[in-house]
Amino acid sequence: MNVPISELPRVVIIGGGFGGVSLARKLEKKPFQVVMLDKRNYHTFQPLLYQVSTSGLEPDSIAYPIRKILKRNNNAYFRMAEVKNIYDKKRVVETNIGEITYDYLVIATGSKTNFFGNKSVEENAIWMKTVPQALNLRSLILENFEEATIAKDPERRKSLLNFVIAGAGPTGVELSGALAELRRNVIPKDYQDIDPEEIHIHLIEGLDKVLPPMSDESSANAQKYLEELGVEIHLNTFVDSYEDNIVKTNNEDLSFNTETFIWSAGVTGAAIDGLKNEALIDKANRYNVNTFNQIEGYENIFAIGDIALMTSEEFPKGHPMVAQPAIQQGKHLAKNLLRTINKQKLLPFEYLDKGTMATVGRNKAVVDLDNVKFGGAFAWFVWMFVHLWFLVGFRNRIVTFFNWTYSYINYDRAARLIVRPFKANKEKSPD
Amino acid sequence: MNVPISELPRVVIIGGGFGGVSLARKLEKKPFQVVMLDKRNYHTFQPLLYQVSTSGLEPDSIAYPIRKILKRNNNAYFRMAEVKNIYDKKRVVETNIGEITYDYLVIATGSKTNFFGNKSVEENAIWMKTVPQALNLRSLILENFEEATIAKDPERRKSLLNFVIAGAGPTGVELSGALAELRRNVIPKDYQDIDPEEIHIHLIEGLDKVLPPMSDESSANAQKYLEELGVEIHLNTFVDSYEDNIVKTNNEDLSFNTETFIWSAGVTGAAIDGLKNEALIDKANRYNVNTFNQIEGYENIFAIGDIALMTSEEFPKGHPMVAQPAIQQGKHLAKNLLRTINKQKLLPFEYLDKGTMATVGRNKAVVDLDNVKFGGAFAWFVWMFVHLWFLVGFRNRIVTFFNWTYSYINYDRAARLIVRPFKANKEKSPD
Repeated sequence: MNVPISELPRVVIIGGGFGGVSLARKLEKKPFQVVMLDKRNYHTFQPLLYQVSTSGLEPDSIAYPIRKILKRNNNAYFRMAEVKNIYDKKRVVETNIGEITYDYLVIATGSKTNFFGNKSVEENAIWMKTVPQALNLRSLILENFEEATIAKDPERRKSLLNFVIAGAGPTGVELSGALAELRRNVIPKDYQDIDPEEIHIHLIEGLDKVLPPMSDESSANAQKYLEELGVEIHLNTFVDSYEDNIVKTNNEDLSFNTETFIWSAGVTGAAIDGLKNEALIDKANRYNVNTFNQIEGYENIFAIGDIALMTSEEFPKGHPMVAQPAIQQGKHLAKNLLRTINKQKLLPFEYLDKGTMATVGRNKAVVDLDNVKFGGAFAWFVWMFVHLWFLVGFRNRIVTFFNWTYSYINYDRAARLIVRPFKANKEKSPD
Repeated sequence: MNVPISELPRVVIIGGGFGGVSLARKLEKKPFQVVMLDKRNYHTFQPLLYQVSTSGLEPDSIAYPIRKILKRNNNAYFRMAEVKNIYDKKRVVETNIGEITYDYLVIATGSKTNFFGNKSVEENAIWMKTVPQALNLRSLILENFEEATIAKDPERRKSLLNFVIAGAGPTGVELSGALAELRRNVIPKDYQDIDPEEIHIHLIEGLDKVLPPMSDESSANAQKYLEELGVEIHLNTFVDSYEDNIVKTNNEDLSFNTETFIWSAGVTGAAIDGLKNEALIDKANRYNVNTFNQIEGYENIFAIGDIALMTSEEFPKGHPMVAQPAIQQGKHLAKNLLRTINKQKLLPFEYLDKGTMATVGRNKAVVDLDNVKFGGAFAWFVWMFVHLWFLVGFRNRIVTFFNWTYSYINYDRAARLIVRPFKANKEKSPD
């Protein structure tokens, strides 16, 4: 085929997350011009963000320049751009760097933090969906320790050393486990002025178990591991407000005085303006797609990953908003786009559940596979292996592996750098 | 000795740079209470900052938590604090976290960027004395490449792809060499829309050679290497102003249209208010010290490193403002402090010049030792070995070594992440 690139049908992919990247890779050397748009110049390996927040890894271990991902594909272009609107009739997306036309549009914008309308939480809490946010949290945690060493007022000291996390999904569980490891391994060595017993880590969950999507067995194991690490778990508890450093809950007797309230209790689709009304399902803010990932009302506009709501008998509320459905839908859509230009019938997407897992701390993780559930040290090794395997790029894997080995042997977390103090400027990057 | 820590004489060290850290380490297990103050919680290995700016290393490779450095010493305390003033009569330093008393005070605050009163440069240029500044420069360079891929106006495109560096000391030389390597190795692979020939790297120096403090032979070699890499060198040239993206020089025919003007043309002492007038030598803003590093007019207040001006026949303008004199003075002062409490006579400091070196690019460096000057690939290996050796901590060495090996084999720079875009907020951290 010697069609010039400019005459190939153009696939515009909005978002360089798991879905967008796996689609773009599968379109390598295929008769499409691929344009990937993202407001950041890197892909983020979100499952390991909590390791950045807790000084285990630097951003380059979990973020990978999108241009490096695309460079094997001569037909692929990257543009660092934020999409403002879609004009479906003109087949154009409007961005902060101008208009871009498309033949096929793929929305892979993922999800953002959901505050369920709670303004006091949105204004005062901290959360962690992006690399700069994870670095903000890293700074905040370390600044708290530094301030606590000199705080004389006991109430203030308590507030600095109380860490409260809302939401016991994988992020909340992994973060509270990592904080508990910091308390156990780093504080006694480096902070003579803080007694580890003064540090409290509270994990609040509205449902009746931690890791709600996992099996009861794994939830129970994760809860046991967290409690062994000294994490204080509050189930069936909802956050009412967070103001003046006080977290109030639906339980009148349960409130927390804390300068660090981390919100990891929900996500919602990061939708874009401009599509027909029927495209969006209001509640979850996800695009309603059919089994070919076509958005309702369109033949040439697709959604994949967290932002796509594909319901079925097995998944009446859509697929879980995690990496695997996004990766699988990206790969599948590549096939369907090829079938489209070859005038073949599209194939329906089928999700292959490869299992879920979460790590709690040193030697402790839980894994749910189809027929097997297991926990403990072996699960922890599986967790590490899978996460290293899925990290993009040889170099990231090696650096991450080295950092984990170092931390494991030395009971240490080496990237404890307050590069940009958070409290002074309180800059909150958007999701 | 079983004197309680609180009764030991207290040495307050202001600054966790090379001087402060080497002093603190030599005071381990000695009969002093050591309090180190720094406004950051980490020690910065400044000679490798340019590698952070050019996407070669992440901050954790060149920054090291001060608490980790001090943790072997039970008598040492760290306080993250900015010193505002010294009250010599009360023997107290005033900080943003309160007053701290001392028996011996050591000022090791180093140097900051010197603009020689040029306001337009100070307001509009970018510089690189700290980790956040180096990250700002990294973002700026990458943002420029991203913008250039879509810039249609040829003047703007030129301005984005022109990099102008003032000052051909080690920082300016190493930075322009690293930029030239980026142009040669990364741009062709990752930016189809930029022709490497469009990128210009200009190095401006007021004196008649690059690396002015080095031997003529090494200067000539460094200049040759830079020119081979395509760096455009302008000697005997002074910057007049930088406004509206135009760098004007004392040569009317020589001006540059650039969005990236990097100032590395001078440093000045980072002095603190409060000492007697005779303590400071106005021009260089360094403290006048005797051969025991005592500041003029004081017996118990010392200065070491860049901030200390110790003149001698061999060094009429004081020692060079680089790592070695700071490290040696820190170690020497530890001995003299011990001699003080043992009522022994103080020993004068003697500087042992271990040589100077600078790297220009792949396989290219220059080294000046006492009797030998050499350049090329062997010098480059020596440079790498010495820099790895002096990096604090086993872990930093390994990660840095791996990153360098990776970059060397792959002709790549992996940390090309715009984590915090610079242009939108133009935050300039203080020196």
